[in-house]
Amino acid sequence: MSESEKSPTPLDRFTCVIPAGGVGSRLWPLSRANAPKFLLDLTGSGDSLLRATWDRLAPIAPPERVIVVTGNKHRASVEKQLPELLGENLVTESEPKDSSAAIGLAAAILELRDPDAIIGSFAADHVIRNEVLFQRAVETAVNAADQGYIATIGIRPTHPSTGFGYIEAGPARGDLAPFDIYDVKSFVEKPEEELARTYVEHGGYLWNAGMFIARATVLLDQMAEKEPAMVHSLREIAAAWGTDRAASVRERLWPALPKIAIDYTVAEPAAEAGKMVCVAAHFDWDDVGDFASVANLLTRGRAGDLAVLGDRAQVLSDASSGIVVSESDRLVALVGVEDIVVVDTADVLLVTTKAKAQEVKGLVGRMKVSGGGHLL
Amino acid sequence: MSESEKSPTPLDRFTCVIPAGGVGSRLWPLSRANAPKFLLDLTGSGDSLLRATWDRLAPIAPPERVIVVTGNKHRASVEKQLPELLGENLVTESEPKDSSAAIGLAAAILELRDPDAIIGSFAADHVIRNEVLFQRAVETAVNAADQGYIATIGIRPTHPSTGFGYIEAGPARGDLAPFDIYDVKSFVEKPEEELARTYVEHGGYLWNAGMFIARATVLLDQMAEKEPAMVHSLREIAAAWGTDRAASVRERLWPALPKIAIDYTVAEPAAEAGKMVCVAAHFDWDDVGDFASVANLLTRGRAGDLAVLGDRAQVLSDASSGIVVSESDRLVALVGVEDIVVVDTADVLLVTTKAKAQEVKGLVGRMKVSGGGHLL
Repeated sequence: MSESEKSPTPLDRFTCVIPAGGVGSRLWPLSRANAPKFLLDLTGSGDSLLRATWDRLAPIAPPERVIVVTGNKHRASVEKQLPELLGENLVTESEPKDSSAAIGLAAAILELRDPDAIIGSFAADHVIRNEVLFQRAVETAVNAADQGYIATIGIRPTHPSTGFGYIEAGPARGDLAPFDIYDVKSFVEKPEEELARTYVEHGGYLWNAGMFIARATVLLDQMAEKEPAMVHSLREIAAAWGTDRAASVRERLWPALPKIAIDYTVAEPAAEAGKMVCVAAHFDWDDVGDFASVANLLTRGRAGDLAVLGDRAQVLSDASSGIVVSESDRLVALVGVEDIVVVDTADVLLVTTKAKAQEVKGLVGRMKVSGGGHLL
Repeated sequence: MSESEKSPTPLDRFTCVIPAGGVGSRLWPLSRANAPKFLLDLTGSGDSLLRATWDRLAPIAPPERVIVVTGNKHRASVEKQLPELLGENLVTESEPKDSSAAIGLAAAILELRDPDAIIGSFAADHVIRNEVLFQRAVETAVNAADQGYIATIGIRPTHPSTGFGYIEAGPARGDLAPFDIYDVKSFVEKPEEELARTYVEHGGYLWNAGMFIARATVLLDQMAEKEPAMVHSLREIAAAWGTDRAASVRERLWPALPKIAIDYTVAEPAAEAGKMVCVAAHFDWDDVGDFASVANLLTRGRAGDLAVLGDRAQVLSDASSGIVVSESDRLVALVGVEDIVVVDTADVLLVTTKAKAQEVKGLVGRMKVSGGGHLL
């Protein structure tokens, strides 16, 4: 027997799940149905967000312990981005069913591989800087998960964001780790600015980055309390996974699964039941929700910088803020416009402002019903 | 002898000069060195401003009495726009020398053709609506010019524009025409907004549209008081015009001519000397100085309208103001931006605002010295 089989540490039983779904419609026209946010390079690094997520997890989990869940139609793109991904670890959805089904199916597959498996979910389209701090937070969370808790990693807020949900932390749990781990009292929705300000001043609140770490069986049992039929179906699909019956079982059960976020099936009920802990982390994190976020990422929050994304972008501007995203080498000239957002693609030009960048989602919604679908 | 030779009225001795120079750099990147403002369609009519100017003058003067003065390099474009233009009426400049030289040369050529010739200059790149009122104003001005006056056509202001110069009108000249003709007390430069407001409230001020009508000899003699050497050269070039020596004489004299606007060599001195009269006109006039003007022209000043210029333009917008100029059929999407100016050409995209549209000229100036010349 190898050493890891003799005395496996919790981290040796840890598998990362990367749910790679979601178009990110607030990033249209850069994001499209065929070019979802997780396939985009939004940091100018040359890597897609999915690839950066994989690389960030590599020091924590080897390829055989990273699972990607994505839509059928993104299979080829994901395989191209992640040549190291094992075939049996690419889980495809026939239609999108939100995070409970995506993460739940991965958990159900994992608990069959190893009844003591620990699962952690990490979105494919977030940006994290300072990876050592990230790794340390994950290790702490994995150890807590091994004790039977459902752990989340919360980010210490750097400003009163109204774009993120918050975690209200309870007493420190020195019994689980020496530093930075707390009970979760509750999850709170995206707040108004004034409330966000009190959260930041109070200090007992963290940004909810949507990272959940738990034993696969603990996670599924928690989900089953809220959605027993769903978990039953997920375990049935998992039992057939990799066999001749896989396709037919999934085809029969998947379409009927509810579309529901894991926050509602696992995180909130677990917090109410006192089974949820959070690791308070210090790394830079952003969900890159809109072009204002992309601008802030590129300028690293410096005021007085115009952000430019695009290898061949040419910009002439008297503006000291805002962002130009260009897929071509033609000149973008800005005169007297501050905080502007210009996204210059082959078939669509978007002009908006950082303050209005969230409203792009509404435009995309209107285009879906009004005949602009071929551009989405 | 034909009837017109027997008893020529002043209008029979009237020749229109169209100075077609000036790139119109505040309309960049639509206007370029090779696509100056007068060759553009800025009204969506399908015609260039030059062609529209020609058509507006056609009821006043037949082709043999319309002269166009333009740069050497625009010869082919002008001929294409104006197939009716006679070869001897196309006057080309080897290099641009502002309006005194351009109009002065036309006047010098004309006084040789007919010592009683009356000349009127009309810019190639202005927009005028209600052509009947325009014709009536020109006729009144021509009759005053026949009496030895230098006449200008001033536009009754519709709002306190800070983008135009003004004419301060003096006493009515009922001896010259029954209505709408006045002495000119002075020409005043583009005013600040508050001063412009008092001009409009006072009522005795007109917009200076740069239209000057005079006997060719009167105009040249007036110019000679200020610039005797210049007028001497212009008459020498004109004397050689159409002969074998034309090119060599122009080549010798033209480069040394001063670059000076006719306002300073003719209009202002004539006003001071009491030789200037103005016709107060009621037609809609605009010099289309920047994209804010283009927007107002296209929406005819209606608030709550987004202006769109471009045959194939596709725009999706929640804005109720501003302008999109597009040379392609790709979608321009505007979210939460009011009064925006978007000019989408093959190699340059400009984004500015109506309020800042004048500053495009400064950007073009900076590009000239900083290496963006190929895009100008």
